[in-house]
Amino acid sequence: MGTRTIGGGQWTNPLRDPRDKRLPRIAGPCSLVIFGVTGDLSRKKLMPAIYDLANRGLLPPGFALTGFARRDWDTQDFGQIVYDAVREHARTPFRQTVWDRLSEGFRFVPGSFDDDDAFDQLEKTVRDLDRVRGTGGNHAFYLSIPPGAFPVVLKQLSRSGLSAQDGDQWRRVVIEKPFGHDLKSAIELNEIVNDVFPEDSVFRIDHYLGKETVQNILAMRFANQLFEPVWNAHYVDHVQITMAEDIGLGGRAGYYDGIGAARDVIQNHLLQLLAFTAMEEPTSFSSDELRSEKIKVLNATKLVGPLDETTAHGQYTGGWQGGELVKGLKEEEGFDPNSNTETYAAITCEIDTRRWAGVPFYLRTGKRLGRRVTEIAVIFKRAPHLPFDATMTEELGQNAFVIRVQPDEGVTMRFGSKVPGSQMEVRDVTMDFGYGTAFTEASPEAYERLILDVLLGEPSLFPVNEEVERSWEILDPVMEHWAADAKGPDPYAAGSWGPESANAMLARTGRTWRRP
Amino acid sequence: MGTRTIGGGQWTNPLRDPRDKRLPRIAGPCSLVIFGVTGDLSRKKLMPAIYDLANRGLLPPGFALTGFARRDWDTQDFGQIVYDAVREHARTPFRQTVWDRLSEGFRFVPGSFDDDDAFDQLEKTVRDLDRVRGTGGNHAFYLSIPPGAFPVVLKQLSRSGLSAQDGDQWRRVVIEKPFGHDLKSAIELNEIVNDVFPEDSVFRIDHYLGKETVQNILAMRFANQLFEPVWNAHYVDHVQITMAEDIGLGGRAGYYDGIGAARDVIQNHLLQLLAFTAMEEPTSFSSDELRSEKIKVLNATKLVGPLDETTAHGQYTGGWQGGELVKGLKEEEGFDPNSNTETYAAITCEIDTRRWAGVPFYLRTGKRLGRRVTEIAVIFKRAPHLPFDATMTEELGQNAFVIRVQPDEGVTMRFGSKVPGSQMEVRDVTMDFGYGTAFTEASPEAYERLILDVLLGEPSLFPVNEEVERSWEILDPVMEHWAADAKGPDPYAAGSWGPESANAMLARTGRTWRRP
Repeated sequence: MGTRTIGGGQWTNPLRDPRDKRLPRIAGPCSLVIFGVTGDLSRKKLMPAIYDLANRGLLPPGFALTGFARRDWDTQDFGQIVYDAVREHARTPFRQTVWDRLSEGFRFVPGSFDDDDAFDQLEKTVRDLDRVRGTGGNHAFYLSIPPGAFPVVLKQLSRSGLSAQDGDQWRRVVIEKPFGHDLKSAIELNEIVNDVFPEDSVFRIDHYLGKETVQNILAMRFANQLFEPVWNAHYVDHVQITMAEDIGLGGRAGYYDGIGAARDVIQNHLLQLLAFTAMEEPTSFSSDELRSEKIKVLNATKLVGPLDETTAHGQYTGGWQGGELVKGLKEEEGFDPNSNTETYAAITCEIDTRRWAGVPFYLRTGKRLGRRVTEIAVIFKRAPHLPFDATMTEELGQNAFVIRVQPDEGVTMRFGSKVPGSQMEVRDVTMDFGYGTAFTEASPEAYERLILDVLLGEPSLFPVNEEVERSWEILDPVMEHWAADAKGPDPYAAGSWGPESANAMLARTGRTWRRP
Repeated sequence: MGTRTIGGGQWTNPLRDPRDKRLPRIAGPCSLVIFGVTGDLSRKKLMPAIYDLANRGLLPPGFALTGFARRDWDTQDFGQIVYDAVREHARTPFRQTVWDRLSEGFRFVPGSFDDDDAFDQLEKTVRDLDRVRGTGGNHAFYLSIPPGAFPVVLKQLSRSGLSAQDGDQWRRVVIEKPFGHDLKSAIELNEIVNDVFPEDSVFRIDHYLGKETVQNILAMRFANQLFEPVWNAHYVDHVQITMAEDIGLGGRAGYYDGIGAARDVIQNHLLQLLAFTAMEEPTSFSSDELRSEKIKVLNATKLVGPLDETTAHGQYTGGWQGGELVKGLKEEEGFDPNSNTETYAAITCEIDTRRWAGVPFYLRTGKRLGRRVTEIAVIFKRAPHLPFDATMTEELGQNAFVIRVQPDEGVTMRFGSKVPGSQMEVRDVTMDFGYGTAFTEASPEAYERLILDVLLGEPSLFPVNEEVERSWEILDPVMEHWAADAKGPDPYAAGSWGPESANAMLARTGRTWRRP
């Protein structure tokens, strides 16, 4: 059991593995304020993650959690909401002593975003926490609210003095996507945020970057000798980055209609995965170096055209999926029956660096596809010469290295092996590494990792304004091209793998999408 | 079901997979004569393999098997011996129709090796088979006899006219190791053999080369794009080739005492595995090209000295192995109580080619070791730079690519992966490919493959005289060095992984043996 002194108090970490010689990163004195505390994200992800962090001993002893919402609640009501969320969604077991200690730091401030008094009350609450709980003037504000409300809340944080950082104290703001809906609006949003918080106090959440498998891309690439030598255009034929969902958009019209798959997923998650996959090796894992390598590769990333041939967009129609008859997007509640919002999007990029020139990166995402899966598939060229007869290699495909981001996290390698028998015949086989079986350590939820990083001020896994803007710059021409396309997105049946145009897009270069 | 016409008869292959579009390689009209038909190898391997080949439809319809031994048997007695061997050891299910057809071609000739009449009788038998069974004058002679008997049998084959090849007919000879006990005796033996049979009619059995996993080394290396780029001195730190056995030498004194582990295993199996692992890519898999690449790499293979430091030899002592108290070599029945025969041998080689210069190849073999396992482990250098803090990579070893030859045939890759948790910590994990689970096709026994190759005249998997002589040339200085060592082999406890001197041998360069 690890014992160390933090903020003057003795704190024993009950969950720490005694074999672990390294000190875990424990947040210093601080508090977290959540706006939009009644929302889904807050209940399903943020509150459980905070409990799990407390349970793992990674929060400071006096940690405080303040909810802000337009609800006629007192702190006890709020505590009950958190309790229910934790009991339903927490990853780690419930322990009464951890809960009792954590809940002593709960506060609730009722109010609407345009209510000066409520923010003044919040400011008083926070100052009070510094005195009573020893939070040391360090406070993070989590805006789990629609982006339309960002300007008013940021203005209030500024007006009430909540965003002001004195001396060693810190104030940080956490925002969720969408970070604008094109380059212009993203720049405007970044200006509004940076007016109140300096960029190094802004933490943009891309929860994919909190996933173990995404961070493992860096470990796999840079801790090993085996893979990096073939991780380039000499050996790689192309890369497929896929985020497929099997669910539809019932109930999400308000957020999704008019946004679509490309803005919702490609602009952030998939371009970030591309950056992790394709970036050069940083000299160290400091956040500055990581960011600068990510920005460098995004700067070198270009759309491949003509966009009619190198992109595809689709919209799901009704059909049978997994034995269930499901609606098409146009029939989903709240969607415009003439909606041209794409639920499937695929684009082709290239990266103009010595390492990657000429290697297509295909990015695709969609709703109501065959299966829920996120993966990065690096597909290698065929060997330049095969000393086998053609009949020996009829069943030999291309080598592949697949990072399975979710579910069933792990890595798969596909390569050719001799088929048992008295002849030399080669067939594709796979080799597998699974997180679940390789490690006894449980994987923390992405939000645990990311909230802890916010409290620690560790910015590596949060995209900065420049990355966000650069990603929009890549995507904007596609959005304009599709907007100008009178026929709209191509229909595809729910449960299929997207519209025919997506297959045609790869078939033009003799390639096919993986069926993951 | 595949149907084709062979030797005038209609032959339906009952075991052929109808999905398989390629024709299997079926031997043409021929017979096999086995000398030493009463021995262990014959009963446990050769007879069952012949039945399995017949069962798989790979033997010609009129195939004949003739036994020659100093036994007062008739053909029926011989048939019973084969029957018992097949029922006990065959890999494929027993089918009466296959057996009935096969056993029609059995013959037995009694006699000793110096008995001219017996060989004349054998010649008559074989000529008779050509007439009755349609074996077409094609006959292979399998010398499953002690090497001391080779000269007399070869002389008899010549004298009686059995070795004479007329026109399109072929006569082949199959011999088993040991192929001499040093370079000089190997050259003598090759001269005796080549006096009677031209080199392209000589098939030297190294049964390791008949194993699927050994042939798969070539498939893995040359059918894929992923591995070859790192298969060289830039990336490889060293290679360990291990053949470990857990059994002792009880009952094998006659063969083993005075021979030892290096002559028994390193000279043939391990140097052949080295050749497969290290050779350059042939432009095709023709046997000529394969051999010429193997010879090329063996020619470039040099012992690393000083031999006191770069080799190790040991002899097992009594001890507990697997819960059983076992004898030391000196106590085994038939061994000289002062025997200096080594039961453990390890040597260091280097290969003077652009690809491998400076990469040590460590070869080791032993009896009464911890576990029965044969594997080739390619151990990679550490990455030239790690962008991680030292604490992050404390549990990171060197990448490894391990070809598991037996048992549990397959491939294992070891590499570093992020440990789940909120920190960047890297630990070795493994990725696995298993023959047993990857393929529904059953692996034929090595002897099935090799006997079929003899009958087909396919020489790829049989070392030629030049390879044998070159291997002795590599090993001879070690044998002379050990013979001159007054203290003899170092003792090691049964069930351990060899003598301390073997660990010291690697420790000098900062390396350690794998515990497979």
